[in-house]
Amino acid sequence: MNLIVQKFGGTSVRDAQRILNVARIITDTYQKGNNVVAVVSAQGDTTDDLIAKAMEINEHASKREMDVLLSTGEQISMSLLAMAIEKMGFPVISLTGWQAGFLTDSTHGAARIRRIHKERVDNELSKRNIVIIAGFQGMNRYDDITTLGRGGSDTSAVALAAALHADLCQIYTDVDGVYTADPRLVPEAHKMDEITYDEMLELATLGAGVLHNRSVEMAKKYNVNLEVLSSLTQNPGTKIKEVVKVEKMLIRGVARDNDVARISILGVPDLPGIAFKIFSRLAAKKVNVDIILQSIGRDDTKDISFTISRAHKEEALAVMEAINEQFGGKGVICDDNISKVSIVGAGMQSNPGVASKMFEALSEANINIQMISTSEIKISVLVALSDSDKAVNVIHDAFDL
Amino acid sequence: MNLIVQKFGGTSVRDAQRILNVARIITDTYQKGNNVVAVVSAQGDTTDDLIAKAMEINEHASKREMDVLLSTGEQISMSLLAMAIEKMGFPVISLTGWQAGFLTDSTHGAARIRRIHKERVDNELSKRNIVIIAGFQGMNRYDDITTLGRGGSDTSAVALAAALHADLCQIYTDVDGVYTADPRLVPEAHKMDEITYDEMLELATLGAGVLHNRSVEMAKKYNVNLEVLSSLTQNPGTKIKEVVKVEKMLIRGVARDNDVARISILGVPDLPGIAFKIFSRLAAKKVNVDIILQSIGRDDTKDISFTISRAHKEEALAVMEAINEQFGGKGVICDDNISKVSIVGAGMQSNPGVASKMFEALSEANINIQMISTSEIKISVLVALSDSDKAVNVIHDAFDL
Repeated sequence: MNLIVQKFGGTSVRDAQRILNVARIITDTYQKGNNVVAVVSAQGDTTDDLIAKAMEINEHASKREMDVLLSTGEQISMSLLAMAIEKMGFPVISLTGWQAGFLTDSTHGAARIRRIHKERVDNELSKRNIVIIAGFQGMNRYDDITTLGRGGSDTSAVALAAALHADLCQIYTDVDGVYTADPRLVPEAHKMDEITYDEMLELATLGAGVLHNRSVEMAKKYNVNLEVLSSLTQNPGTKIKEVVKVEKMLIRGVARDNDVARISILGVPDLPGIAFKIFSRLAAKKVNVDIILQSIGRDDTKDISFTISRAHKEEALAVMEAINEQFGGKGVICDDNISKVSIVGAGMQSNPGVASKMFEALSEANINIQMISTSEIKISVLVALSDSDKAVNVIHDAFDL
Repeated sequence: MNLIVQKFGGTSVRDAQRILNVARIITDTYQKGNNVVAVVSAQGDTTDDLIAKAMEINEHASKREMDVLLSTGEQISMSLLAMAIEKMGFPVISLTGWQAGFLTDSTHGAARIRRIHKERVDNELSKRNIVIIAGFQGMNRYDDITTLGRGGSDTSAVALAAALHADLCQIYTDVDGVYTADPRLVPEAHKMDEITYDEMLELATLGAGVLHNRSVEMAKKYNVNLEVLSSLTQNPGTKIKEVVKVEKMLIRGVARDNDVARISILGVPDLPGIAFKIFSRLAAKKVNVDIILQSIGRDDTKDISFTISRAHKEEALAVMEAINEQFGGKGVICDDNISKVSIVGAGMQSNPGVASKMFEALSEANINIQMISTSEIKISVLVALSDSDKAVNVIHDAFDL
């Protein structure tokens, strides 16, 4: 008998019709002789509605009380889903995060799972119950309710699959898998049957948006077999695992991220420690820096550029203006009219032709590359925002994805 | 330092405005140097909305899953109330039923409180936190969420006041106390300053509707000082305690209950055990019987009449028809066009004039009495539904309430 963990996001359970549909997926899996644990998010707009209720009363409510409030969202959807399964005549029980033994740290709003006390879930499974669990939530060691923050339900599902040694963790969403590029952008994009954890990580970071990074990292760490598939179609999804069968294709996908701002500081002294000063101060302001580029020193000064999420533009500029003044730089400039386009693939490093092929495709399309960054399994370029769509398409074509 | 438990019903927290108002009542009490624990119900229509969501999916959902669903209502209101108190700058923490240590039996939907593990609440109070607790809910010994059923939040508040040895338990509602009669019915009705537990119990049973019986029984048992008052006015409420100061007034109030049906079985054999057979079969069908009247036996047969809630009419009639057939009775009749009007007062028993004064008032108003029932502290009569309003008024007048 196999144990399968299935995760259903907010759009998959947004109304009674969708809940009954999800109940059908779960009971089909169960009827095939599997044990099933389903992790469920809050319904559609529930979380937003609860936040609006809180804002009406207190715009600066404590994160502890926000967690108490928001955790009701999954508690509602899990009980409704259990009722739908009861109606179909199957044995089922719903469990909140704390009932299911999700012990977290005390970082309300962005808690990390410390341990899963799986006795209750094991016990229910041994009775052949279908177990429905509230995603996104847990309890700290003081018995306070916590939430896991963005992508929390994916993380709940993967962590539970790891703890229970599940045979498979299926992430049901509103797309039917991982594509070689965003299909809304590139009509020729196709779904991949398989992809490695590392490739998925790069694609997730780069804005593919199917699966949250945290859950992929955890799946890689505990070697959880993941599958991304749609709750609305019967199509096979994309399997994410350590080693994939098809190795011949070097480039797995093209991703694009428009939430990018580039900041440059010009003409700062070429002294040891200046980069450290910049990036430690940004870190202190909780500004996540993505690509970093430093020009080769000339006439005792250098230029340093980096990219950040647009949301952090003001904080980052303030830090850089202060640095510029302190070290007598030649000014700070910012450009947020840009886009980051990346190719991802495990075989990239050992194939030197990949980068040049990408740059050639961009050049032929007359797209200027503003910055380049490479890692073992990806190459990212910054281009003008207006060139972004075209860049994704010409790269996708160049690699015959 | 006094410890005060305050309970706020669903209408008291139905929107952001009302929640802020309740937060003011709590923080005013706290600022006077008291420790405060507030027990809160679900907002206004939340429970009905949640039930509607469930019905859309499964009209016969298990009570366990209904409890999971419904308990989110108080969890939402308690966190919003805590946020309102945070906004006013006071230290506060909200706790669900299970966090506050409410251990119940496993009767989902109508659980009984078994014990309150008060360590967490004590601990929060010792830090001078205001503690907000979800009423109506608890946890059984398997860590499953339970709800207490009707009047549950009142019961939560009184049980907690008993466990914490609180100095006072204030029940905030949308009326400002207990009246000598329903003010919508009897314009001269006035609010009582004090009333005994027993009188309150009779009034509650008789349909005064201010406070649930279960909570008054518990308050009497553990000698909890209760006060019923309005969250919308500053008026003093009604205190409910073991012995009240004002003993001179014999009759404390007039109550009326229109949810009554009278069933009579005619001409059954006057044999021992017939009453037992009737009422044990009704009990087996969970039909609560209120007043019972048996005629004096004549020609070896007798008539037995009793009253029940209208909701149980069909079950009761079915039982009685079977009895009638089995014992060769002369038929079963039912009247639900009636009303029960009662007077309540602790000094009644030692004053034989009370009953006759009540009957005289009804007689003068030309109101026919269909059935009479008396206890130590109340006299109830059944009258035609059309006479009910008039009956309440003439009795209220006769006793100068």
